[in-house]
Amino acid sequence: MCYNLALPRFPRPERLLRAMSQLVGNALIGQSGGPTCVINQSLVGVIETCVGNAAVRNVYGAVHGIQGILQGKLIDVGRESRETLEAVAKTPCAALRSVRKKPTREECERVLQAFKQYDVRYFFYIGGNDSAETAHILNEVAMAENYDVRLFHVPKTIDNDLRVTDHCPGYGSAAKFVASAFMGDNQDNRSLPGIKIDVVMGRHAGWLTAASALARECEDDGPHLIYVPERVFDMERFLGDVDAMYAKHGRCLVAVSEGIHGPGGALIVQSKEVDSHGNVQLSGSGALGDFLAAEVKAKLGKDLRVRADTFGYLQRSFAGYASEVDAVEAREVGRTAARVALSGDRPHGSVTIRATRDGGYRASFEVTDLKNVAKETRDMEDALLKGDNDVAPAFLDYVRPLVGEMPHAARLSDFPVR
Amino acid sequence: MCYNLALPRFPRPERLLRAMSQLVGNALIGQSGGPTCVINQSLVGVIETCVGNAAVRNVYGAVHGIQGILQGKLIDVGRESRETLEAVAKTPCAALRSVRKKPTREECERVLQAFKQYDVRYFFYIGGNDSAETAHILNEVAMAENYDVRLFHVPKTIDNDLRVTDHCPGYGSAAKFVASAFMGDNQDNRSLPGIKIDVVMGRHAGWLTAASALARECEDDGPHLIYVPERVFDMERFLGDVDAMYAKHGRCLVAVSEGIHGPGGALIVQSKEVDSHGNVQLSGSGALGDFLAAEVKAKLGKDLRVRADTFGYLQRSFAGYASEVDAVEAREVGRTAARVALSGDRPHGSVTIRATRDGGYRASFEVTDLKNVAKETRDMEDALLKGDNDVAPAFLDYVRPLVGEMPHAARLSDFPVR
Repeated sequence: MCYNLALPRFPRPERLLRAMSQLVGNALIGQSGGPTCVINQSLVGVIETCVGNAAVRNVYGAVHGIQGILQGKLIDVGRESRETLEAVAKTPCAALRSVRKKPTREECERVLQAFKQYDVRYFFYIGGNDSAETAHILNEVAMAENYDVRLFHVPKTIDNDLRVTDHCPGYGSAAKFVASAFMGDNQDNRSLPGIKIDVVMGRHAGWLTAASALARECEDDGPHLIYVPERVFDMERFLGDVDAMYAKHGRCLVAVSEGIHGPGGALIVQSKEVDSHGNVQLSGSGALGDFLAAEVKAKLGKDLRVRADTFGYLQRSFAGYASEVDAVEAREVGRTAARVALSGDRPHGSVTIRATRDGGYRASFEVTDLKNVAKETRDMEDALLKGDNDVAPAFLDYVRPLVGEMPHAARLSDFPVR
Repeated sequence: MCYNLALPRFPRPERLLRAMSQLVGNALIGQSGGPTCVINQSLVGVIETCVGNAAVRNVYGAVHGIQGILQGKLIDVGRESRETLEAVAKTPCAALRSVRKKPTREECERVLQAFKQYDVRYFFYIGGNDSAETAHILNEVAMAENYDVRLFHVPKTIDNDLRVTDHCPGYGSAAKFVASAFMGDNQDNRSLPGIKIDVVMGRHAGWLTAASALARECEDDGPHLIYVPERVFDMERFLGDVDAMYAKHGRCLVAVSEGIHGPGGALIVQSKEVDSHGNVQLSGSGALGDFLAAEVKAKLGKDLRVRADTFGYLQRSFAGYASEVDAVEAREVGRTAARVALSGDRPHGSVTIRATRDGGYRASFEVTDLKNVAKETRDMEDALLKGDNDVAPAFLDYVRPLVGEMPHAARLSDFPVR
């Protein structure tokens, strides 16, 4: 079934009236960077808000983001049925397909030519801080050429490291996955004791690794140690920590961020592969986990049972296990971007989430300037961390509502035999 | 809340009558080997069937399986509340805690002494084929010493490689996890194309790796290649397969079993760590995936985007994502073991599942001799495989009902811009 939700040929009078004061043209949407489980909620949020608005003639999608615009690979997403859109919204990863590309100035000028060619007056780029930067540069180019276009960044990142916003769409679902993985692995480690190291995504910031703490229910539950990039990683201290926890619990479950680094900022295990934003490849390899496991074995005892798992892409793409709050918010972030762009209140911006947690969790959606979100990332604040190897209770208050309902791990009472 | 479900001090007359013809004493349960997400369903199935039976005075649990019996670490699980038992049943991994230990003949004799000491007349060992073998040896020792005890093996293994049974409790949940992971990773690979290798558990048999095929919905969905230990792995052929799929789809998602091996049976990447059953450590390391990714890069082009993930322990322990069918069957397998043991119909055995798929999936539960399940494992039959790198449609018919409802991955229609 496929019915057309696009603008009827003869718009109703009130829409026409509103459109007269609006910038009229086509809307274009792109997705960029690493996927999330709810990134298509934002896509559908933008599409459903644009479709039927008098100012929008067609709603296009760029296949593989900025790369697709440069190659003229556009599709007409305004013609998708409501049924398809709802199914796509629930599907992980970029339905428009994604790209890791930082356009050069010359490429940005070519993008602007494409905007003119396709009469694009509304551009929405769903991505992380690199995508915000791309939108920011495009805005400068558009202004320089006096081309009127609304440029909006729609945030997403499982890394949760965008500035201004309370948290990022995509993070809650990834955090739920990581916490559930640790909850299970803690039981696994309790079943067959040993030292287990789990490597979690997070290039610059430890938000996702920190979410592992949600797995704890009993006092001796793991993760027993949590290492994030906000703290300098010291191998000797790490080995001492593991040794102490193993002595205490007879086992040790460790959460390690892929982005941990030494005092000079040098990564513990470094790949040579770098993308056009200068980001070093960290994921898609078990190297860091295997290296740490080998160190533990070499220094603490070769007869120890030491294992390492690297959660990898499952954290950002696992099907069927999104956080419900995250899904709802990602949708609303897309809608907000489109609503504000179409209102004409501001020519460009990035959507942010404001959240209050006192007296129950509530979120509201606002827009900030692109430059506030572009380039720079946001680390975990000191108040959210405890020492060098744990999170503070304040972090749990922060993250719990974003993840929503978690499974519960129960134990036997271990009643003694009479 | 904690109320006692154990046998009342003065059993009702009809129970007493039945008990007179029954072997009366205590029941003991142990869990062994790698955990599954539903192994505690079987535990609770045994407990709830034993508790309240006139022949059973107490229901004990051995902490860390056979090791716990040798060390006298028993707990009274018959005193657990119904509420605790139901919560434990839903918790992944061995609530009694597990062990990887093949007892020697001398240790088996010590186990028998413990049986006598604690008046154990019913012993249930929840585990894989190694656990069936342990029960089998214990049975021989008991017979030699003329000690009357019912010894039952309660099957579990995500590897699905036990003989006689249609499938093994624990497999359906692990298969659901693997299939959902591939469904997400296929979208990830479609978002950001490249060559992606995912390593799946399965020491001897490819059942779990094969479940990745459930992720496919569209003709070009991955996994595009599936390698299982039932087929000899040839590096040149593998590289040729990947090259061809990459040329065809512009991307390639590969499912590889951790147990793949060369013509002589030698593993592709081998750890030196071996347990007391002679099993080599395969999981808890990203070495195989990283090695294959490096080979692809070296031979097919260093500029290719090649990544590898090793799913690791998450496959057997992830919290909150079990297959419902699997959970129900694991419970019933535990109940069946206890019911048959208490009936006195046979002195020992291993529970098997008989399944029919024609006209809707139905399962029934039976018992076979321990020796039929001990030691040997079951590979995937030829009819379930297609060539060297795929599964046959018959496998999908086999596995689908065990996994139950899967998420659905939807695509945009890619309508052209007019």
